Amino acid sequence: MAHSAHLTHTARLRALQAYLDARRLDALVVSAPVNIAYLSGFAGSAGLLLVTREGLFLLVDGRYDVAARESLVAGRLGPVTVERVDGRYDQALASVIAREGVRHVGLEAGNVTVATLSAWRRAATGVEWEPTERVVEGQRLIKDAAEIETFRRAAKTLDYMASRLGTIVARGQTEQAVASGIDAALVDAGFQRPAFSTIVASGPNSALPHARPTSRRLEAGDLVVLDFGGVLDGYCVDLTRMAAVGSPTASAMALYEGVREANASAVRAVRPGVPASDIDRAARAVLEAKNLGEAFRHATGHGLGLEVHEAPRLARPDSEPQERLEEGMVFTIEPGAYVEGIGGVRLEDDVLVTPGGCEVLTKAPHDLLRV
Amino acid sequence: MAHSAHLTHTARLRALQAYLDARRLDALVVSAPVNIAYLSGFAGSAGLLLVTREGLFLLVDGRYDVAARESLVAGRLGPVTVERVDGRYDQALASVIAREGVRHVGLEAGNVTVATLSAWRRAATGVEWEPTERVVEGQRLIKDAAEIETFRRAAKTLDYMASRLGTIVARGQTEQAVASGIDAALVDAGFQRPAFSTIVASGPNSALPHARPTSRRLEAGDLVVLDFGGVLDGYCVDLTRMAAVGSPTASAMALYEGVREANASAVRAVRPGVPASDIDRAARAVLEAKNLGEAFRHATGHGLGLEVHEAPRLARPDSEPQERLEEGMVFTIEPGAYVEGIGGVRLEDDVLVTPGGCEVLTKAPHDLLRV
Repeated sequence: MAHSAHLTHTARLRALQAYLDARRLDALVVSAPVNIAYLSGFAGSAGLLLVTREGLFLLVDGRYDVAARESLVAGRLGPVTVERVDGRYDQALASVIAREGVRHVGLEAGNVTVATLSAWRRAATGVEWEPTERVVEGQRLIKDAAEIETFRRAAKTLDYMASRLGTIVARGQTEQAVASGIDAALVDAGFQRPAFSTIVASGPNSALPHARPTSRRLEAGDLVVLDFGGVLDGYCVDLTRMAAVGSPTASAMALYEGVREANASAVRAVRPGVPASDIDRAARAVLEAKNLGEAFRHATGHGLGLEVHEAPRLARPDSEPQERLEEGMVFTIEPGAYVEGIGGVRLEDDVLVTPGGCEVLTKAPHDLLRV
Repeated sequence: MAHSAHLTHTARLRALQAYLDARRLDALVVSAPVNIAYLSGFAGSAGLLLVTREGLFLLVDGRYDVAARESLVAGRLGPVTVERVDGRYDQALASVIAREGVRHVGLEAGNVTVATLSAWRRAATGVEWEPTERVVEGQRLIKDAAEIETFRRAAKTLDYMASRLGTIVARGQTEQAVASGIDAALVDAGFQRPAFSTIVASGPNSALPHARPTSRRLEAGDLVVLDFGGVLDGYCVDLTRMAAVGSPTASAMALYEGVREANASAVRAVRPGVPASDIDRAARAVLEAKNLGEAFRHATGHGLGLEVHEAPRLARPDSEPQERLEEGMVFTIEPGAYVEGIGGVRLEDDVLVTPGGCEVLTKAPHDLLRV
């Protein structure tokens, strides 16, 4: 396990060093914690990683120093030199840059604030800073074999957890209590933690696409959106299933059936080479044909990985630059329809793009859970 | 409630507009979600707020549009105009800027990435952008009466939850199961959600200041660090208490007693006008006198508010610019000592700076919980 993790990190580092060569950069400062984790295996929430043509330098403060060194000993970190930061990160970074003799240094424009770059400029004199865009994110977009194996295990674990929803969701419970039950069941099932704040939205609240659980109690006639996910070995999976308390009305069932068809239609549209917006289109077309186009008030999906929201984004073509699907991408498909007075429905699965189309990783049935 | 929330937001807006006048800015773009929440009451995770000398414009996309308008109707938002974004945020921002005729516009240098500022420059031609530093954060540093009332309720709720730890922490349980029990108890006690990923670190893991819960089971001889917090009406409180499984060794007890003294000494040092680093010094001096200076591997505390880590930071004088305590600040005091082979101890409380010193908001006893 440790040995293969080391090989994985080495391969990721080599790919990044090839980028440095191509861009004629001496080094890149990686500052997004998730990118640092991807490249080095270090999973703390603070730190900086300096990647040079020769090596990988992890700057961490005293809070993480021991954890980083222990990961290193355990072989979980790649070929990393740990540099302990005792004062300010900008000054420590400037020291390592000076010591390693690098001058033309890339920075992650999407992850460095205007204020941080000012501080780096002041601390590291003589360095020529070069903004780069989504370099490590680009690597992370295509999942490698180790990541795909983790996703399959994680999706199976999430399916198992979903099979237990019937024991958690009950009439008379508050949304908050149901969310808390889901969180406990995620950990029980084997996840390290929930991947995000679990959404339980019942009755009128279900018509809000991003509702937070409230003290409202589930009652007869409610549609209930259950949107939850877990983190397994660092990777996030995400699922939405629906419950109905008592007998759903005909208009609620129509919403549900429309969203179920939209989900299936989007899944069928996935294959390498098509623009990500085509998947959104496939889902939206189904709902528009049922006069529910206006009711679908968000994008169809988002990439999954070390973060629960990452590239690609499956949305309308006008809202993002066109991105084409490639083999090895993993993302959600989660059409929804939200109508005040009726409620909301969302059905979400996680898929992996394969040479011939896609593998639906999450296999929990779409049926309305009747409680 | 709604009416007073409106008054609170109006007062915060007036203070910000006075800043615009003083800096001769036509407007400020507020982009940190937490700053947007502070100024407008809107609690979504995306959006932009344009504050001009005349008004407040909240740009939100379709995911939040209904929620934002409903908050507005309910009087929870301040005097805000909601602007729905259908395409890209940078273009929507440029349109509102052009329509309102503002030209000299501040941005939050600490919250805007290098890439985002590039996109704004491209979209909004003719605008003169001015980096500002920690303007809204500066307002948030001193809590107003409504916030202090919320903190007192939140701390009381956290104390109640802490009184139940004896029913949650048990020999043979995994760290993850204990963390999950704590999370459920936080919600039970009345919190909307945990304020951060609960830390349960037992035995050797307790020696890592920022350990995550693992599948390790609590066993005799363990020290157990329990670090958790909750969010109440948007505000975060944070507590660390200690458990011991079976009889702690004499060296474990010495750690515990040292940290307890350090906590008390830091609390006694708090009063308006002293540098924040003095509080760190007070805690550190106690531990250094017991040869535990090296074992205290993090800062003494951090501010609390809408975020669980905000200003001020109570740390060594050399690692941050000097900040002085002021009446109305709320922060943690959480000295710790971590020794491989013995374990770790941390005791954390939340305090409010008062004219004469401080009010310790959290009143749960410091005693070692024996399980």
